[in-house]
Amino acid sequence: MFKYELIKEEKDTGARLGKITTDHGEIQTPIFMPVGTQGTVKSMDQDDLKEMNAQIILGNTYHLYLRPGMEIMEKAGGLHKFMNWDRPILTDSGGFQVFSLGDLRKITEEGVEFRSHLDGSKHFMSPEKSIQIQNTIGSDIMMCFDECAPADADYDYTKKSMEMTSRWARRSKDAHQRPDEQALFGIVQGGMFDDLRVRSANELVEMDFPGYSIGGLSVGETKEKMFHMLDVTLPHLPQEKPRYLMGVGSVDALIEGVMRGVDMFDCVLQTRIARNGTALTSQGKLVVRNAAYADDFRPLDPECDCPVCRNYSRAYIRHLVKCNEILGARLLTYHNLYFTLKLMEKVREAILEDRLLELRTEVFSKYGIKPTDYQKALKLNRS
Amino acid sequence: MFKYELIKEEKDTGARLGKITTDHGEIQTPIFMPVGTQGTVKSMDQDDLKEMNAQIILGNTYHLYLRPGMEIMEKAGGLHKFMNWDRPILTDSGGFQVFSLGDLRKITEEGVEFRSHLDGSKHFMSPEKSIQIQNTIGSDIMMCFDECAPADADYDYTKKSMEMTSRWARRSKDAHQRPDEQALFGIVQGGMFDDLRVRSANELVEMDFPGYSIGGLSVGETKEKMFHMLDVTLPHLPQEKPRYLMGVGSVDALIEGVMRGVDMFDCVLQTRIARNGTALTSQGKLVVRNAAYADDFRPLDPECDCPVCRNYSRAYIRHLVKCNEILGARLLTYHNLYFTLKLMEKVREAILEDRLLELRTEVFSKYGIKPTDYQKALKLNRS
Repeated sequence: MFKYELIKEEKDTGARLGKITTDHGEIQTPIFMPVGTQGTVKSMDQDDLKEMNAQIILGNTYHLYLRPGMEIMEKAGGLHKFMNWDRPILTDSGGFQVFSLGDLRKITEEGVEFRSHLDGSKHFMSPEKSIQIQNTIGSDIMMCFDECAPADADYDYTKKSMEMTSRWARRSKDAHQRPDEQALFGIVQGGMFDDLRVRSANELVEMDFPGYSIGGLSVGETKEKMFHMLDVTLPHLPQEKPRYLMGVGSVDALIEGVMRGVDMFDCVLQTRIARNGTALTSQGKLVVRNAAYADDFRPLDPECDCPVCRNYSRAYIRHLVKCNEILGARLLTYHNLYFTLKLMEKVREAILEDRLLELRTEVFSKYGIKPTDYQKALKLNRS
Repeated sequence: MFKYELIKEEKDTGARLGKITTDHGEIQTPIFMPVGTQGTVKSMDQDDLKEMNAQIILGNTYHLYLRPGMEIMEKAGGLHKFMNWDRPILTDSGGFQVFSLGDLRKITEEGVEFRSHLDGSKHFMSPEKSIQIQNTIGSDIMMCFDECAPADADYDYTKKSMEMTSRWARRSKDAHQRPDEQALFGIVQGGMFDDLRVRSANELVEMDFPGYSIGGLSVGETKEKMFHMLDVTLPHLPQEKPRYLMGVGSVDALIEGVMRGVDMFDCVLQTRIARNGTALTSQGKLVVRNAAYADDFRPLDPECDCPVCRNYSRAYIRHLVKCNEILGARLLTYHNLYFTLKLMEKVREAILEDRLLELRTEVFSKYGIKPTDYQKALKLNRS
């Protein structure tokens, strides 16, 4: 089953408080979803994720297709059982990864021929194949197979790509074997062109998906441009369906995105910078790897109540990072995910109490980010 | 404070049940001690270690001296506070690591000049320096600075080395600043020569240390030879003091060592083979990295009740290992340490109930190890 319930729209912004119900439990939106590319959120175990209250995690179709492969996934009875995670899972379509392969892939109307980044073996991915894989994975939320055009693609390329993405969305929908158990989202493309975004949204809404993703953003364009594309696109998506902004999760984009009506986010930022020795804190990013923290015995974020901040100092974590100790990556990953999930919890509370703009001012001023001029966005969103 | 209480000697073997009391809590012996080289048991956090009931862990003086360095260690108030571990800690003397540097070090009566394996910087380690570092680290159990002669060293070299180790033991004892809080163990050397081992033991016992370590074993000699050296050495150590067999921790050596009167063990085996994709199980070693386990959905060890075996399959862990995912190393490390700590718990129970020989038969037959002829050992030990 899949159900989205719009609980409340905020008074002064386009922010929405909602609830998604799946066979594997409920998701309070707006939500940030940790990324578990290969069936593991890097360095976390599934108990860690529950402890930090991750309500849903991602799996990557491309990676899981290559390893462990669908024969084992099928024998395991799907990804939930394989990795022992009984809460909701969302999978991407594999499109983004396949297109990122560059010279290793060839796109046709039928699909994409590509070579594995692991061993060079030849594979073919199509809407039908992507859906078949996602059906085997058994994710609660699936994605249509789309083409994510580069940020600098010209109008002509982007238009053709967007049109093909619409045709692929139709084929994805037709190929879906378990629509009652797994919700398939359409993905809005259209690059940096307002009219193409609107057309893409309209064509997908026409096909009536249970939710809509916004793809092809945060691919090299400015933040302003990204927020503009949200302002242009979101008014064309139905209020009664969830909206998912793919691959976006910086502190400013989370809050600005929510204000524009986005319900779901995912990002590898939190886990990736953790492995590079950087923490997200209420005061901004903290590069704990730096020598300045060698004898700093305060927690990563004095305002954070996570187990890492309660138990370990910057000096200790810096030492672990400098020694390439696994525990360094693990502690930073835990904290960064906790920090982001907690931020989204505060966002949900603020929406409930109609004070999201206030929360934005509070968070951004400490973090050192400038808020966008939101009146324009608000006008567009409510028009 | 430091106190060793001999609770019971087993009827049919030389095994001893005991209790060590330190300022950071009690240790039930015989005990296996996980190795936390750089202030972290690789991939574990301190809560993991408590959850699996690790009663004491090791730190390595050489590594901690280089990183984070003693300035930070001092500011932190010692290793317990630095890493947030409030149970006992044992440190080695740095001797073994320094001697392992090969061409990078030069030994004189005064001490050892060496170059850091990290950046080639020049350092000098002596008994006085080693003790000073261990005083700063604040470990509950410290080691005298010793020379660990190679297994194939000849009689002359080994004799001179053992004699210097005795002189260094005296200097270590004299340099010790906090004998009331930190117990300093003497280290028996003497290579593979019976008379040198006996002389070393006697000379150290003469100096009256609160505990005795057996060093220079498991350095390339056969298991039989190692057990023989224990048979030769242990009768010369006082019953009322704990005995620690350094760097030894395979399943057979643990039980055979306990039967010969050893109280404490440490080993990097458990954590190192974990990071290579190998599990210790009641049926022997399981190389879960192997293709045979790709679709094996049983736990690592069906007889184990650890959280890893309760939650994850061989297939999942094998997938993690193949993908070089941190979680693979972490789950295997947890299981291997849990398995070993649990084994020692069983050993302690068996001693209490005078059935250690029975337990040995049970464990070895499943594991596929041949027991030694113990009558000989027993005779020596009780003589």
